[in-house]
Amino acid sequence: MAIKITSVFSMRHLFLLSLAMNVSLILRTMYEREHGLNWLCFEAPNGHLSQRTRLSLSSSSTSATTTPIDAQPGGDSIINLARGDPIMFERYWRQMGDRATVVIPGWQYISYFSDVTNICWFLEPEFAKEVVRVHRVVGNAVTEGRHIVVGTGSSQLYLAALFALSPHNASEPISVVSQAPYYSSYPSMTDCLKSGLYKWVGDAQSFNKEGPYIELVTSPNNPDGNVRRSVVNKSDGILVHDLAYYWPQYTPISSPVDHEIMLFTVSKSTGHAGMRIGWALVKDQEVARRMTTFIELNTIGVSKDSQLRAAKVLKAVSDSSEHAAGNLEEEESFFEFSYLLLAERWKLLRKAVEHSGSFSLPEFPPAFCTFLNRVSEPQPAFAWMKCEVDIEDCESFLQGHKILTRGGKEFGVSPKYVRISMLDRDDNFNLFVKRLSTIHL
Amino acid sequence: MAIKITSVFSMRHLFLLSLAMNVSLILRTMYEREHGLNWLCFEAPNGHLSQRTRLSLSSSSTSATTTPIDAQPGGDSIINLARGDPIMFERYWRQMGDRATVVIPGWQYISYFSDVTNICWFLEPEFAKEVVRVHRVVGNAVTEGRHIVVGTGSSQLYLAALFALSPHNASEPISVVSQAPYYSSYPSMTDCLKSGLYKWVGDAQSFNKEGPYIELVTSPNNPDGNVRRSVVNKSDGILVHDLAYYWPQYTPISSPVDHEIMLFTVSKSTGHAGMRIGWALVKDQEVARRMTTFIELNTIGVSKDSQLRAAKVLKAVSDSSEHAAGNLEEEESFFEFSYLLLAERWKLLRKAVEHSGSFSLPEFPPAFCTFLNRVSEPQPAFAWMKCEVDIEDCESFLQGHKILTRGGKEFGVSPKYVRISMLDRDDNFNLFVKRLSTIHL
Repeated sequence: MAIKITSVFSMRHLFLLSLAMNVSLILRTMYEREHGLNWLCFEAPNGHLSQRTRLSLSSSSTSATTTPIDAQPGGDSIINLARGDPIMFERYWRQMGDRATVVIPGWQYISYFSDVTNICWFLEPEFAKEVVRVHRVVGNAVTEGRHIVVGTGSSQLYLAALFALSPHNASEPISVVSQAPYYSSYPSMTDCLKSGLYKWVGDAQSFNKEGPYIELVTSPNNPDGNVRRSVVNKSDGILVHDLAYYWPQYTPISSPVDHEIMLFTVSKSTGHAGMRIGWALVKDQEVARRMTTFIELNTIGVSKDSQLRAAKVLKAVSDSSEHAAGNLEEEESFFEFSYLLLAERWKLLRKAVEHSGSFSLPEFPPAFCTFLNRVSEPQPAFAWMKCEVDIEDCESFLQGHKILTRGGKEFGVSPKYVRISMLDRDDNFNLFVKRLSTIHL
Repeated sequence: MAIKITSVFSMRHLFLLSLAMNVSLILRTMYEREHGLNWLCFEAPNGHLSQRTRLSLSSSSTSATTTPIDAQPGGDSIINLARGDPIMFERYWRQMGDRATVVIPGWQYISYFSDVTNICWFLEPEFAKEVVRVHRVVGNAVTEGRHIVVGTGSSQLYLAALFALSPHNASEPISVVSQAPYYSSYPSMTDCLKSGLYKWVGDAQSFNKEGPYIELVTSPNNPDGNVRRSVVNKSDGILVHDLAYYWPQYTPISSPVDHEIMLFTVSKSTGHAGMRIGWALVKDQEVARRMTTFIELNTIGVSKDSQLRAAKVLKAVSDSSEHAAGNLEEEESFFEFSYLLLAERWKLLRKAVEHSGSFSLPEFPPAFCTFLNRVSEPQPAFAWMKCEVDIEDCESFLQGHKILTRGGKEFGVSPKYVRISMLDRDDNFNLFVKRLSTIHL
């Protein structure tokens, strides 16, 4: 009997060893392949899904059908928090049963067109209606008199905005800047086609070129969670506000924001990243028209199925907020649920960081949230953590502890920082804080 | 009584006159606005959805909720066949009842990821399975040993292929060519970002530059329906095959095609343009990887909802084909239905053209179709019609008869030609052939 157990164990160890070697070999091959290619996008230096990241994702896979490579609780498993996959929200949507279920018959929504009277002719009216409603319910953005442009995620809307705002007869591409630390995908998204229309220049704080420029203002900011304003303040600037995280679970809502171009996405607001649905609120009609033209040329519109599903999900969010406000106990408010879950996670993380003594986290002042109708804490979707003392490369340091994060360099700042997703599955997050608390320098 | 009828007629005429003036004014304003902008994409010269086209679409709107501006049968209504909106197929899908209905609960498919073990990590396995199956059932493409890359329509896959095939360290952009008449959107899609990676050069037949190039081969061809092969035949060429119309309803299937990069789309195969789902079958792993990288940078993946729905629809198509082959009378084969409908339409069109005497149509030799297991007629999704005698601008000539088409110039050839969609609604198509037959020079 004892022999049998030993032999079973050996087989398992051999298998794991062999698996580890395979993984290591694949990683090495991929690293070499990536670095053999002398072009930005293929090196994925800005944090886009490099092969390395993706491979390791198997261990914290978000797909219900994928089996983790190594899933011993608290053991040697790889904990991947490098991506911002918002699966934390899955639990809420399970609880909601069929309130957000969408049913689409085979013969419906066949056409390219949704509403030919709208500038954005591929915008489903039902989706547009729920976008307006959710902003009214939450009070986070002005929608009156705005054009809504729907996009295949806010990524496509970012590119559409660049296209719409760039002068198309200029002798050189317009400069695109954002205050560091900035969203790690901006540089590669901007430059990967070597466009003659626009060009990534980098940190807005050191930008001092004359002439027109586009400044991206992400608020609250990805990666560091800070509320942001434009920093360049020159006369020729055009601003694009990425407001993906301006929702009550992440930050106190102070007032409905009112900018020229505001980008939102269901990925971060409701957690439905797989839909690839974002929307832009745009003041200027001509800008909305040009953004629409970009999406025509890029993908001839945006999935109607996902727009319909997004409408259903946004409706459920607004309904749950209104029911909660009306003290109807029948269902939990989406934002209350998400706020409380994130509050718990931030508490656990701060405790682990304190226990470890090797890291630090930013502090945020609480403020009154007009939606929650009480003082609330900012609790960003990402933790922007700093390795203390003499650790120069925080990402590598944590990788040594099998915690995958995204390093500061990809966000245009010091490698002493890492960005950690706060939106992963419960088990993965709990494993992470447990392990983090045991790291002592 | 007579007075009453007259006054009703007058009111109606006045209303129509006023409406026509409005349309004319709006068209003029838009024309001027478009031409005031000195950049390719904003002028939409290549047939992308210009405002002009979109506005007039109201009259043949594909949206069930939109009311035609003017819907008198056979009267003065505008007949818009300039776009290839495939709503002809709606009738089949209605007949199918709930066989192609998709149901998606709110908590499912939340993640960005579909299958992290796949190069194309956002490809839903269920969709991939049905893609392989439909090609096996139809026998139109080799799938063994191919990588499947899913895209937001085949437009995005076309751009992904350009990105993947362009040398990223070259001193000048790679030339992109296609034999004229070519798909009218290729030039603007290729050039609208002024990419330093690739550049639209035009007709492949007159291309004689040395060095690498990308040749697009659309077969059967949009607009003219011809079966195509590459024409440049230089050593440095890379081919992209757009096979959107290589399905039994449009052309006899001779054998499973076997090229390096093959693009397909549900828009044309099943008629679901609103899904924005296409797929590429790619031989080379590195090309598949780069195409995936492009889609990451462009839209961070492809709508899962539409992939699931496309899987369901493709399954229904394959099921219906297999049931029909097995002589199960329970349901009609999708391809038989579509073939017969198009056959009827082509017959009506040829009759109208003959009756009119002012136009000509291409002739296509019948051939054996391995799928239908009989000799079948090529019957393209578009009619490539020529105005005879002294009409130089066929698009304008037809516009004078309130028939909107897309003129030859947008396809890189003579304005004596126009492209006419054969896939519109029954009533719109019938109105068109009726009116066409009455045009005599």
